[in-house]
Amino acid sequence: MYSYPGSLKKLIARLERLPGIGEKTATRLAFHILEERQERVKELADSLLEARREIQYCSKCHNITDEDPCRICSSPDRHREMLCVVESPRDVAAMEKTDEYRGLYHVLHGLISPLDDIGPEELYLDNFVERIRNEEKLEEVIIATDPSTEGDATAMYIGRQLEDEDVNVTRLAQGLPAGGDLEYADEVTLSRALSGRSKLDNK
Amino acid sequence: MYSYPGSLKKLIARLERLPGIGEKTATRLAFHILEERQERVKELADSLLEARREIQYCSKCHNITDEDPCRICSSPDRHREMLCVVESPRDVAAMEKTDEYRGLYHVLHGLISPLDDIGPEELYLDNFVERIRNEEKLEEVIIATDPSTEGDATAMYIGRQLEDEDVNVTRLAQGLPAGGDLEYADEVTLSRALSGRSKLDNK
Repeated sequence: MYSYPGSLKKLIARLERLPGIGEKTATRLAFHILEERQERVKELADSLLEARREIQYCSKCHNITDEDPCRICSSPDRHREMLCVVESPRDVAAMEKTDEYRGLYHVLHGLISPLDDIGPEELYLDNFVERIRNEEKLEEVIIATDPSTEGDATAMYIGRQLEDEDVNVTRLAQGLPAGGDLEYADEVTLSRALSGRSKLDNK
Repeated sequence: MYSYPGSLKKLIARLERLPGIGEKTATRLAFHILEERQERVKELADSLLEARREIQYCSKCHNITDEDPCRICSSPDRHREMLCVVESPRDVAAMEKTDEYRGLYHVLHGLISPLDDIGPEELYLDNFVERIRNEEKLEEVIIATDPSTEGDATAMYIGRQLEDEDVNVTRLAQGLPAGGDLEYADEVTLSRALSGRSKLDNK
């Protein structure tokens, strides 16, 4: 039975472990590596190790960082009255891209999902209430979890945790997405847009 | 302006160099790497380097191999009367999977493509005619290039090179693919299937 040389088979198998990479893509990538310049392959291998080694979670907000505390937590320019709770570091990047939010963050690294057996103890919530109390200027906690069952459950849980704290707890608005088409909006989106309707300023 | 930590940005940029990997996929893969176990990341990095270092082209057939000559060229069990010319090592794997072919190979690592400025000198054809003369038992050269403009041009070129040699030159049949649907076959496939029709054995 014919098979590829051992080190190629191994490379394909290890590429296949990556999320969203099936056998065909892994094979295509592996063949590309074989024909790529040696120093380019070395650069990729080094980057994998370096990123994995250097990047850690900020001990305050748990966002990814290469220094602790992270640049957002330690910046004097951030508004310490607001703290935004998000699922992942990618959500921090998305929020930052809006250029509208200048407050702090708290990254959960997951959402509560009873179906997948993920409870609040799996998220970065251990010292969350303590942190909220310690942020002296804090006035508002914005829960920015996904508008999904898991995001809703997580928002609800965090809301209850903060019930007795002296902060306003808010959640991102849900409704029609910009550029969307009402005709094609699903019922849940549409009914949330309806119940969240706001007064049109027409005076 | 917010941006990811340096080593993460670098990893994303280097993953983006891979074929078919855009910014979104590179970001997704990089975040996976950050959360992957350290030894797993090391295994992947090692595999990249090892495959690139160990795998070479067989000096006889130019297929990928970790020993020279490769296992097919040096096997006493292969039928040395037949030699199959293919574009790439992946085509060797495809031919071997059929379990029908037990001959030798010659891997071109490309196809002639005037539009992309790829001429025969870019392919592994330097010593091809010499090799054909040296294979003493050789009776037939099967050209198994793709049924495409480039595959046709390459087959034509190789055919002319072998014009004066004492071997039969054949090419893989073109026609309807197994399980295909005549109604949806394109005109070229259908007209090739028609001109390549064979007598039905109904006696």
